[in-house]
Amino acid sequence: MAVNLHEKSAADLLHIDGVQVYVGQAGVKKPDHDDVTLLVLGKNNTVGAVFTKNRFCAAPVETARAHLAEAEGVRALVVNTGNANAGTGVQGRADAVAVCAAVAEQIGCKTEQVLPFSTGVILEPLPAAKIIKAVAQLRPVHWNDAARAIMTTDTVPKAASREGLVGSSHTVKATGIAKGSGMIHPNMATMLGFIVCDAAVSQPVLQQMTQEIADMSFNAITVDGDTSTNDSFVIVATAKNGQSEIDNIADPRYRQLKELLGSLAEELAQAIVRDGEGASKFITVEVTQAANREEAKQIAYAVARSPLVKTAFFASDPNLGRILAAIGYAGVEDLDTGRLKVWLDDVLVAEQGGRAAAYTEDQGQAVMAQDEITVRIELMRGQAAAKVYTCDFSYDYVRINADYRS
Amino acid sequence: MAVNLHEKSAADLLHIDGVQVYVGQAGVKKPDHDDVTLLVLGKNNTVGAVFTKNRFCAAPVETARAHLAEAEGVRALVVNTGNANAGTGVQGRADAVAVCAAVAEQIGCKTEQVLPFSTGVILEPLPAAKIIKAVAQLRPVHWNDAARAIMTTDTVPKAASREGLVGSSHTVKATGIAKGSGMIHPNMATMLGFIVCDAAVSQPVLQQMTQEIADMSFNAITVDGDTSTNDSFVIVATAKNGQSEIDNIADPRYRQLKELLGSLAEELAQAIVRDGEGASKFITVEVTQAANREEAKQIAYAVARSPLVKTAFFASDPNLGRILAAIGYAGVEDLDTGRLKVWLDDVLVAEQGGRAAAYTEDQGQAVMAQDEITVRIELMRGQAAAKVYTCDFSYDYVRINADYRS
Repeated sequence: MAVNLHEKSAADLLHIDGVQVYVGQAGVKKPDHDDVTLLVLGKNNTVGAVFTKNRFCAAPVETARAHLAEAEGVRALVVNTGNANAGTGVQGRADAVAVCAAVAEQIGCKTEQVLPFSTGVILEPLPAAKIIKAVAQLRPVHWNDAARAIMTTDTVPKAASREGLVGSSHTVKATGIAKGSGMIHPNMATMLGFIVCDAAVSQPVLQQMTQEIADMSFNAITVDGDTSTNDSFVIVATAKNGQSEIDNIADPRYRQLKELLGSLAEELAQAIVRDGEGASKFITVEVTQAANREEAKQIAYAVARSPLVKTAFFASDPNLGRILAAIGYAGVEDLDTGRLKVWLDDVLVAEQGGRAAAYTEDQGQAVMAQDEITVRIELMRGQAAAKVYTCDFSYDYVRINADYRS
Repeated sequence: MAVNLHEKSAADLLHIDGVQVYVGQAGVKKPDHDDVTLLVLGKNNTVGAVFTKNRFCAAPVETARAHLAEAEGVRALVVNTGNANAGTGVQGRADAVAVCAAVAEQIGCKTEQVLPFSTGVILEPLPAAKIIKAVAQLRPVHWNDAARAIMTTDTVPKAASREGLVGSSHTVKATGIAKGSGMIHPNMATMLGFIVCDAAVSQPVLQQMTQEIADMSFNAITVDGDTSTNDSFVIVATAKNGQSEIDNIADPRYRQLKELLGSLAEELAQAIVRDGEGASKFITVEVTQAANREEAKQIAYAVARSPLVKTAFFASDPNLGRILAAIGYAGVEDLDTGRLKVWLDDVLVAEQGGRAAAYTEDQGQAVMAQDEITVRIELMRGQAAAKVYTCDFSYDYVRINADYRS
């Protein structure tokens, strides 16, 4: 089902100095199934993190935020699947802390130096005892096993690596894993992304970079517009590559590292869309020449989220009216619809408030028959731009979401 | 397919003094099919109108707005189906005016005294000549025939009447018709609503009332969240019931008339949801005890628009997690999720940030099995409230929207 998405092998994924990867089996939902993942970090690393903006955020999100604020250095990330520990109140928070305490005891650090992540059913108590027992029996693995262990409804594990020069004399290696196949349902919907690199970056600068990268990757995808209670994205810099610390955003290495890690995050985020429920096409909606990034994103999201546009892509129907209507209702009050232009890949389809003069339905049909399509909207208002990635909307979306309890 | 929605007969719908109703056949899309509707108004009436906020608004919307601004009294509303005259540029505007001119000549008024409305395919030139020819051959009919003539993909004609005391000694009669079955696709997506009553209301006061009524009816429904290029809602007051004019909103008759016409508009708007594509359930999302109406609507819409919530309703699945997650991401920044309460009909399902203690899945299941369901969300933040009406999201939604060109 996934659109042009394939599993990576252990050899495709770089080992990162300063990180050890473990998985284990707590049997939260299924027996004989890896459902606990632990990333153990060396000292002197830094961590950037962004979390769901959902007001119903889960206990592990609250706990991770609190631990990040208190901790003198994060030493481990622990992830369980099968139970999201969301909508679980005070007990949920206690359970999240208990899991962190077990990890801390195991590796020899403080409870606050462990960040917990959970994904799975919500509104059910976390089986913390099972997870704690599993933590004592983890086994070292490669990244590809970790990518598999954090899956819930994903059909393909999501992982990628990058290596590149940052500064004139040092390379940075980075590996990331992610899970999510759209907001499938709050029972197993969470989007998690973890990237680890061996660069040296001060904490405030890494936090800034994490936010900027999230904005162009995990915050630029939509399967159905719903956002989960547990979404989290973390970048760890282990400072093991021997270069001096990047401690301000004016350092030219900031941009280089951001591009390297950003490209990795984009691949992971796009993998989530490619594995979107029932997805048969991968769609990029690109808005250019906007007055500002805000309006560019607003219009890109209106098009990318429209059920009508998405069902037209499923049907390979070059339905310009649906795209124009979505642009029109995006909420940009002073938009001059007579000036903007719309392309499907390289075909100009709309201008001057209607269908482009030279456009033929055959041209549109040829683009729509592809499994990767770019909708480009030129607003002629300024220099800002935004890209949003989405997938089409199929029978299978309804089937998966309507039938999962049966 | 429509949920508890049945066609009204001529006898169910009140004649309104000061309005004559005609239909005719222009053959825009289908032969032997009423596709032009004309409401001819007497003198001394007043008109309130609200139009789509879509920036790609259609030529008839622009023309109707301009005519309302210029006219000394509206004398006719003319509606065609089969072609929306949208995305048609300068020629589209000329075509809309040409149709108005033909009606004006026919009934003896100025072109600016005619308001045009179109619904049907977009991005195609309006066949104005055919419509103009039909205008010369219209036949007088009852309201039920007009309700049928303005249908596009609707499966049931939508019409209703009300009669009630406004002030101590005069009754008001009102009849309305509407079309729309969700934003099916911009080709035939438009929501049109026309209400005619025999009350006497000054123009600015009627405009204010029209906006308030739209807010609680046509602007409180969502099928898929998409809004069309042609949406229009008009209230005509013919001033034929013999009472003195309502010329300020402090007049106690303002509230009485607003309730009468509001109830009629709600019935018509709900009929559009009941006839939503593939709808099998009618859902009311009610938010109460909000700090203000804005946030109440914001949360009600987030729940009503969520594809995950809507597929859960289709599946009769009391999936509390999806509802809670939608409340959480609605964008109310300081929402305390620990304080709010959620009901499915009379069953308290969530409180204190999670599942209600006494709630059982059987209770939820019993409510979800119904074809009319109310989700009630008490925010405990203030006195404001909002209701939004929607339907579930079924296989048929995807089928209808993916297949209509095949």
